Amino acid sequence: MSLVGTGTIGLDTVETPFGKAEDVLGGSMVYFSISASLFTMVRLVGVVGEDFPDQHRAVFAKREIDLAGLETRAGSKTFRWAGKYEGDMNEAETVSIDLNVIAEQAPKVPDAYHDSEYVFLAATHPALQQSMVKEFPSAQLVVCDTRDFWIDAEKAELAKTLSLVGGVVLNDGEARMFTGETNLITAGRRILGFGPQFVIIKKGEHGAMLCTREAVVTLPSFPTDKVKDPTGAGDSFAGGMMGYLASIGKFEIGQLRRAMAYGTITASFTIEDFSLRGIEAVNRTMVDERLAQYTDMLTIG
Amino acid sequence: MSLVGTGTIGLDTVETPFGKAEDVLGGSMVYFSISASLFTMVRLVGVVGEDFPDQHRAVFAKREIDLAGLETRAGSKTFRWAGKYEGDMNEAETVSIDLNVIAEQAPKVPDAYHDSEYVFLAATHPALQQSMVKEFPSAQLVVCDTRDFWIDAEKAELAKTLSLVGGVVLNDGEARMFTGETNLITAGRRILGFGPQFVIIKKGEHGAMLCTREAVVTLPSFPTDKVKDPTGAGDSFAGGMMGYLASIGKFEIGQLRRAMAYGTITASFTIEDFSLRGIEAVNRTMVDERLAQYTDMLTIG
Repeated sequence: MSLVGTGTIGLDTVETPFGKAEDVLGGSMVYFSISASLFTMVRLVGVVGEDFPDQHRAVFAKREIDLAGLETRAGSKTFRWAGKYEGDMNEAETVSIDLNVIAEQAPKVPDAYHDSEYVFLAATHPALQQSMVKEFPSAQLVVCDTRDFWIDAEKAELAKTLSLVGGVVLNDGEARMFTGETNLITAGRRILGFGPQFVIIKKGEHGAMLCTREAVVTLPSFPTDKVKDPTGAGDSFAGGMMGYLASIGKFEIGQLRRAMAYGTITASFTIEDFSLRGIEAVNRTMVDERLAQYTDMLTIG
Repeated sequence: MSLVGTGTIGLDTVETPFGKAEDVLGGSMVYFSISASLFTMVRLVGVVGEDFPDQHRAVFAKREIDLAGLETRAGSKTFRWAGKYEGDMNEAETVSIDLNVIAEQAPKVPDAYHDSEYVFLAATHPALQQSMVKEFPSAQLVVCDTRDFWIDAEKAELAKTLSLVGGVVLNDGEARMFTGETNLITAGRRILGFGPQFVIIKKGEHGAMLCTREAVVTLPSFPTDKVKDPTGAGDSFAGGMMGYLASIGKFEIGQLRRAMAYGTITASFTIEDFSLRGIEAVNRTMVDERLAQYTDMLTIG
């Protein structure tokens, strides 16, 4: 099935206890598309400014990523984010954010993308997510992400977005913030009440939880002692998950569980090095080898 | 294999967002022995004061628990703990603690217990744990727990205890505090350096992690939206784990993983109601049914 993703592409400056990376390629759609491309061709929708360095385009070129939807806007500047991780590195502290081109008009979706069947909408203004849903009338599954900022500023619009999607991924703090519930299962079920068929709550180093109307599945993260930079973990998770789902074209509970497992694995590669270095070097064989280790680890016997 | 456990037996007063329980039966050895008795006969070592209510003894009598090692000390008062849980209930705040009889001489181990093969030492002064190890010269596996208080006050003694045991269970905060490491795998490996063959780090609602010299296994908690009182979760985990290990008499990686899973299940029953009400009503069939659900949940397929 065809897969399209829309989100940010930008330049990140990240500091963690293990080092610093300046002006590196970043943004939700970068981590998403690189991870999803391990499973299927990805159509990318995003916008950068005219300052976007050419060498960053080469990263996409190595993968099955369709860049017809990557708009380079003359006279605009690329989105920039600077963040810092401390202690257990479970949460980034935003040092600075320059929306630049992201704050302008949304990127144009190429005509050839309108028949996309699997759609991922990374975190952005929920009204923009709603207008993006309309761009894909053939969608079988639309999944959105969100973040604390939008829950705080645009809760009603976010509720409307949730009524238009089949699935949502968000982190534990966001799920609690949006619902006011402490217990994550209760929070997940509250979110289902807004319309989606499934909710996946990402818990950082503690793994992820899937809630449907019939089932709850919690899976741990893949254990690694080489966590260098958690940036992009959530988007890599979504990429692995959506890439796998699109590649098989079904999203019943069994496929969702396996998709979560694949997302867990792609995220585990991302966090093992700065910026894209962790996931960039990975191929599908490496993903499947790590999935086999993960599956073994979870086999109670 | 014969199993013996030593730890506190006391009276708890607990407040959570879901209610309050006053002067209820509590203490590590109560949760441990009730949970372990679902798998095998348990020899209990502990001491209470002459104020210990008779009706509390009845709780043990319903189970396969040998009370020859439960000393009732004339002229002494029973251990009391009062605690409070707020928010996500992952950590108890101690409101008051009266060591009473616990601060006096250690309980006497009955002669008939000296041949015990599986030994669990709940958290207490590490020097006392060391003297307890000597009471069981036939032990094939000794596992100890500890807590923040002993890490802070008796770190060198705790290191000595670790050199005498085959396994240790402790929570994530304690593992970080003891080692100064943030990454839990690194922390687990540092603890292995003190001598034990395995370390299990309990992560509350986030499950548990096993570290051996060859493997790392993380398992999630059993998902429940009925968390009423987390008191005793860690000791129920240890009880299910040690009860299962003693019942099969082996502790290679496969058995340790299954033991962790059983511990996860017994803990999940404990937290669903106040005090012992959650685990008290459970039988082995219920444990195995829940284990089957848990195993299904973790089958990636």
